[in-house]
Amino acid sequence: MAKYSLGVDFGTLSGRALLVNLETGEELASATYEYPHAVMDETLPSGKKLGMDWALEHPQDYLDVFAKTIPAVLQEAGVSADDVVGVGIDFTACTVLPVKKDGTPLCFLDAFKDNPHAYVKLWKHHAAQDKANRLNEIAHARGEKWIDRYGGKISSEWAVPKIWQILDEAPEVYEAADYILEAADWVVWQLTGVQTRNSCTAGYKAIWHKQDGYPSKEFFKALDPRLENLVEEKLNCPVTPLASKAGEICPAAARLTGLREGTAVAVGNVDAHVCVPAVKIDGPGKMLAIMGTSTCHMLMDREEKAVPGICGVVEDGILPGYFGYEAGQSCVGDHFAWFVDNCLPQSYYADAKAKGMNIHKYLREKAEKLAVGESGLLALDWWNGNRSPLVDVDLTGLMLGMTLQTRPEEIYRALIEATAYGTRMIIENFRRHGVAVNEFYAAGGIADKDPMTMQIYADVINMPIHISGSAQGPALGSAIFGAVAAGSARGGYDDIFTAAQRLGKLKDTVYTPIEENVKAYDKLYQEYETLLDYFGRGGNDVMKRLKKLKNEASR
Amino acid sequence: MAKYSLGVDFGTLSGRALLVNLETGEELASATYEYPHAVMDETLPSGKKLGMDWALEHPQDYLDVFAKTIPAVLQEAGVSADDVVGVGIDFTACTVLPVKKDGTPLCFLDAFKDNPHAYVKLWKHHAAQDKANRLNEIAHARGEKWIDRYGGKISSEWAVPKIWQILDEAPEVYEAADYILEAADWVVWQLTGVQTRNSCTAGYKAIWHKQDGYPSKEFFKALDPRLENLVEEKLNCPVTPLASKAGEICPAAARLTGLREGTAVAVGNVDAHVCVPAVKIDGPGKMLAIMGTSTCHMLMDREEKAVPGICGVVEDGILPGYFGYEAGQSCVGDHFAWFVDNCLPQSYYADAKAKGMNIHKYLREKAEKLAVGESGLLALDWWNGNRSPLVDVDLTGLMLGMTLQTRPEEIYRALIEATAYGTRMIIENFRRHGVAVNEFYAAGGIADKDPMTMQIYADVINMPIHISGSAQGPALGSAIFGAVAAGSARGGYDDIFTAAQRLGKLKDTVYTPIEENVKAYDKLYQEYETLLDYFGRGGNDVMKRLKKLKNEASR
Repeated sequence: MAKYSLGVDFGTLSGRALLVNLETGEELASATYEYPHAVMDETLPSGKKLGMDWALEHPQDYLDVFAKTIPAVLQEAGVSADDVVGVGIDFTACTVLPVKKDGTPLCFLDAFKDNPHAYVKLWKHHAAQDKANRLNEIAHARGEKWIDRYGGKISSEWAVPKIWQILDEAPEVYEAADYILEAADWVVWQLTGVQTRNSCTAGYKAIWHKQDGYPSKEFFKALDPRLENLVEEKLNCPVTPLASKAGEICPAAARLTGLREGTAVAVGNVDAHVCVPAVKIDGPGKMLAIMGTSTCHMLMDREEKAVPGICGVVEDGILPGYFGYEAGQSCVGDHFAWFVDNCLPQSYYADAKAKGMNIHKYLREKAEKLAVGESGLLALDWWNGNRSPLVDVDLTGLMLGMTLQTRPEEIYRALIEATAYGTRMIIENFRRHGVAVNEFYAAGGIADKDPMTMQIYADVINMPIHISGSAQGPALGSAIFGAVAAGSARGGYDDIFTAAQRLGKLKDTVYTPIEENVKAYDKLYQEYETLLDYFGRGGNDVMKRLKKLKNEASR
Repeated sequence: MAKYSLGVDFGTLSGRALLVNLETGEELASATYEYPHAVMDETLPSGKKLGMDWALEHPQDYLDVFAKTIPAVLQEAGVSADDVVGVGIDFTACTVLPVKKDGTPLCFLDAFKDNPHAYVKLWKHHAAQDKANRLNEIAHARGEKWIDRYGGKISSEWAVPKIWQILDEAPEVYEAADYILEAADWVVWQLTGVQTRNSCTAGYKAIWHKQDGYPSKEFFKALDPRLENLVEEKLNCPVTPLASKAGEICPAAARLTGLREGTAVAVGNVDAHVCVPAVKIDGPGKMLAIMGTSTCHMLMDREEKAVPGICGVVEDGILPGYFGYEAGQSCVGDHFAWFVDNCLPQSYYADAKAKGMNIHKYLREKAEKLAVGESGLLALDWWNGNRSPLVDVDLTGLMLGMTLQTRPEEIYRALIEATAYGTRMIIENFRRHGVAVNEFYAAGGIADKDPMTMQIYADVINMPIHISGSAQGPALGSAIFGAVAAGSARGGYDDIFTAAQRLGKLKDTVYTPIEENVKAYDKLYQEYETLLDYFGRGGNDVMKRLKKLKNEASR
């Protein structure tokens, strides 16, 4: 009898379940449920107004994802819940909420349902920036060693600034919360009845380290005396390595989902990191880039090395037994969208429409006819700052080489090339600091749909690029972790590496570097690097001075 | 009885006559005639194909301008030819043609009418670039001093490269020509029956100097042994200062135009330079910028000073008794047009159309609401290279400061600001080399129609800007020179300075610097200057290297 694993992927606006055959890797059925509350960035359900840069979600929506999608996929695939041996989930991160001892979110309680701080703070909630700034100052002033693991900077998106904001602005919520935890861990708790914390979000988002644990009481006290016992008071739960079993479907979860009690559940995971086994990556030196509006790079090594400008390095943070490195580019697909929204002449839209083509496809058709270097353009891909390796949100975009003959498709291609140079810079930064990058894998919308861009990337980084074989990488990754939680005795797998090789998927297409283009891009990349040093490393801080003038002028 | 002067302005595509009352300065009537042959850049009238970068005109069109427009303005104004005391003309330059001893253009002769080199080579004929390159090399190798008067470089648009091209590619045309001269001088010859050569085109375009004359025989011989006697063989005619009388309307011209025989005719002039008296400029320190697709800057001083990067300095080149300096920006209105043609989203066109607005006006309406510095953008205005002060066609455009929030109107404004910084750089370059710039005047389409841009310029250069009062500056300037050719005895004026004060026109509008903006632009200008030095003076020659790669890739 065939056995199955179920992966549930919680995105920013919807959740999706995917059912996978554990023998063949076949994806049998999937179902998506859009969060009814979507992202709350203006008001609470009561109509209460939210501040600038807020972004909340409603945890009821996550429970509804389970209730709607799991029965739907079982029914669509004609698979009995008896044959589903494991469940895995992945979530956006850092996405956190305050709950009571039994797991009840504070926002479910009448006393707090009109308090914004009682809801889920979504990853892109940016209203704790002042807290992040203070935290970074204090950490550097105190010489905290752990900050080097995060490229020298903790983001306002991460757990401690968000928790500190709750304490500062709503001490009654902070007081009433028995735990503050990642939504990834909260949904697993709802399935199993038992709280766990996964090593991925703990490590990347909550400053946890396998040997050293969380930062010291002294550090938290230096932030705010009331935070001194933060770990014991709000984070008090052991951290479990990825690919572990969190527990089994509890009676309440069985009623909610139709799954059998006792079905194995994996510890929670993050949407990007969970994709690594889904593309069969099973060890060091193999970089995975998830390419969408921004790009997230994942890489493993046997040792912990200090690499400046990365987002973080976490033991067991991607796959157990390895140090997982994360780096990123803050503006990739967003770049191309900005161009199409702001810089494209009417005639191009009209022509694309006449040809019945998507505007990006139309532009690519023109751009791909250009030889490398033919546009004479070069850009720095900093429209949204630089995440890795400069970790500097105050950098801005640059383009040079324009003439009166410069055409839109040339600018479009230069923006794509700039993001490819940014990726090469990240790869070289890893290598320079002793972390090998020998193979390159790509997933996400761009990897899936844009052969021109992928060929440019292959030529710029001079490595073949392997493409994720599943259109639903995160859900497939979660199902793989679910299969490991089940174990081979129940028809799953005993380790994530075997499961990845068996269930992970790559397309047959491999983008192979074209020798002639590699040579031409080498020259352009040298120019990119020179400009990066000049504008990004203190040669000329004009971008920062302009940003300062801009802020003054906008007041 | 009122007396009148007639100015005839020969542009790139049409000629225009303007009748001016010498007492009141009133512009009574004007008439335009479009050249039937327009610019011939693909074929001759016979259908014969032209090469790359060719641009020819037909001299019959110029005669037709006289025949069509002069009678028309007299009739429209109801003025008798008896009361027209002077005629002045201005022309594009360097626009040259080969003629016989009696002034007959070679292209009028059956033997040559199918030979492209027998026609008028228009200012923008760029097919002699290789000749210009050789000429510059040889001049520098020989240490020719005169090249410093031209910012170190002779343009391919100028007379000697064009003449050398005739010799090289059509020696039979060179041989048959008794003279090769500016169209400005040729049309005056057609009016008077006597050849003259004006000091403006001779000085700026044909390397003539009031004291030193033309370059030496040795120099011309070094170019090509057959050019050794170029001056005696093809340019043999004294050079006459501007504001002199060239002669009087001859019988043939009287028949052609309806003007009276004996009417005074001024020596020829150039369309930009002739505007100086039309805005009442009468001495040193007063800069006039003619602002259109590109910008031409004119300035006078009592001494000849070596100013690097100018287009040229010529004694009597603008007004008699002064050294006239010319500088330029190669891309101004073209900049804004490029942006509108290549970088503007559909929604802006749709919205402008719905509001019934010209797209530039629509953009300006958005751009003028921005505070100085608010966009965070900074550009180098090098989309068409840099004419002054870097004299470098291989430089290309740069923009930095873009974010995902950057809007089209911000980019548009940044391009305008970049051209204003370019103007300030030219002013400061003159001052640094001892040539005073105390007042600033503007003429041309942008000066006339674009208050936002003019205010930005006033704020950037921190000087009030006076605007030409006539919509037909060149024709008015020509009429003023015509009045001086007539002299006071015939109802005209005895000197150009009195005539300029009486007949020149300024608008009442003066753009006055706004203190707060001046301060903000000072900071931005410092940034512009730093980038100009870095990218334009050898700090980082990335633009040239990219251009080289571009040329290689385009092959």
